[in-house]
Amino acid sequence: MDDAFNPPGLAEAVNAKGFSGAAGFRILAIEPGRAELALARRDDLLQFFGHFHGGVITALADQAAGIAVTSGLSKGRIGVTVELKVNFLGPADGNELVARAKTLQMSGSIGVATVEIFSRDDKSERLCAFCTATMRALDLPPEFR
Amino acid sequence: MDDAFNPPGLAEAVNAKGFSGAAGFRILAIEPGRAELALARRDDLLQFFGHFHGGVITALADQAAGIAVTSGLSKGRIGVTVELKVNFLGPADGNELVARAKTLQMSGSIGVATVEIFSRDDKSERLCAFCTATMRALDLPPEFR
Amino acid sequence: MDDAFNPPGLAEAVNAKGFSGAAGFRILAIEPGRAELALARRDDLLQFFGHFHGGVITALADQAAGIAVTSGLSKGRIGVTVELKVNFLGPADGNELVARAKTLQMSGSIGVATVEIFSRDDKSERLCAFCTATMRALDLPPEFR
Amino acid sequence: MDDAFNPPGLAEAVNAKGFSGAAGFRILAIEPGRAELALARRDDLLQFFGHFHGGVITALADQAAGIAVTSGLSKGRIGVTVELKVNFLGPADGNELVARAKTLQMSGSIGVATVEIFSRDDKSERLCAFCTATMRALDLPPEFR
Repeated sequence: MDDAFNPPGLAEAVNAKGFSGAAGFRILAIEPGRAELALARRDDLLQFFGHFHGGVITALADQAAGIAVTSGLSKGRIGVTVELKVNFLGPADGNELVARAKTLQMSGSIGVATVEIFSRDDKSERLCAFCTATMRALDLPPEFR
Repeated sequence: MDDAFNPPGLAEAVNAKGFSGAAGFRILAIEPGRAELALARRDDLLQFFGHFHGGVITALADQAAGIAVTSGLSKGRIGVTVELKVNFLGPADGNELVARAKTLQMSGSIGVATVEIFSRDDKSERLCAFCTATMRALDLPPEFR
Repeated sequence: MDDAFNPPGLAEAVNAKGFSGAAGFRILAIEPGRAELALARRDDLLQFFGHFHGGVITALADQAAGIAVTSGLSKGRIGVTVELKVNFLGPADGNELVARAKTLQMSGSIGVATVEIFSRDDKSERLCAFCTATMRALDLPPEFR
Repeated sequence: MDDAFNPPGLAEAVNAKGFSGAAGFRILAIEPGRAELALARRDDLLQFFGHFHGGVITALADQAAGIAVTSGLSKGRIGVTVELKVNFLGPADGNELVARAKTLQMSGSIGVATVEIFSRDDKSERLCAFCTATMRALDLPPEFR
């Protein structure tokens, strides 16, 4: 990866903390402008019907979008979410979620990413949600560098 | 509450399960077309900067919207999320989140709710996010009645 | 209106040009952070079923949001639309549309506004759409001042 | 095109009426679940800075999404817009707009489409907006068949 871009270490650090660390978000792949994250099914991540909770799906999509945008920024910059929108397309009832994010456009300090979220079983995956996220690039505060 | 509407018991059951139960979502108030939920700060609900994770904020907003819409439906019906959109307006760095949802419109089986989410400290609260959610009313499957 | 804010003249100039001028958008009221616009029914603004076209409703909402945000900016600054989202809540089959926009939050150069759009007949009005818009504040290019 | 699906005639009729007819929307291609529409630049379709108005961009995207979803429905059914969301990615300052819509998912009577909107000059095109639209399938009222 080009030195001009953020090293994956920042994404790993972001991902290890707080909710994403506790829930078990895993980074499968990162390149500038793209990120793929996965999350295994666990009882405390579900909703009433036993599918992944919409907020958990959104959290994974948001994180993937943030890492996709951040990985295309110059070192010491990070993308934070301005807004996001998720359409829930089908039951997220698989063993695992996979979120694939890509940056559509960076324009000044504003980046827009789309994220496809799949519900995956042992043998197949199915699109279960689609997200658009708008990010704003900030200088990373010194205490987080 | 009118017998025509869902009793709060359904909302309590929805809220006790899975992610919302594990995270500690609390229902503060329900009336047909309205719901207020709260969530106390906990390390495993935060993001990299130590504020509530955007996905957790969205989960609380989604749950509040779902309960607001469901509480205005006839007994045995439940609202599930078609799509939602959240604008993050400021740091969610308080001790607690409070989400206040109201149904804007029910039209056939489609309901639209808005949710204001506040970051609350001991003495004050500040709007930190705004959500719009589209819900679809379904008959509750027999095994969940 | 405070000198610190944009004078209504900018909003009038924006509104007179292009599509909004040709369609007949009328500014009913402006104050910093708020705007109210109206649009009379005309055959070339409708869709297949004879109601106002969703894109025309969106154009009015977008313009109202832009004027609401711009009217709260310092002189020489203008809000441009980053993204918007509209829920269509009922038929826009009145004689006139009225859009009422207010700024929810300005944070740095990012502003978020909500807009209620009403379909109005001689004697009543009914909420027919709800919009959230994210705006970015720019310096007005010299040739537009 | 399979007899099971709506014939293009319905899309042509929808497109000829009201705003889309007056603005000059052109259908370039339709197949079940896909539609491509174009719109030539005209002074009365622009905004203050001389680019296509955001509401006009949204109208074209909405129409393309509606035709994409409708063209995949059985005869006598039509998709109407529940909600839409547009991110504006760059100046729409070309000679022409082109909107390419595809249905992501139909689930019961709810369909979700994404639309890429390009600003096109003689020699190139550039993505200027991205839209997600949620549609609801209705029986076409008898007077419109």
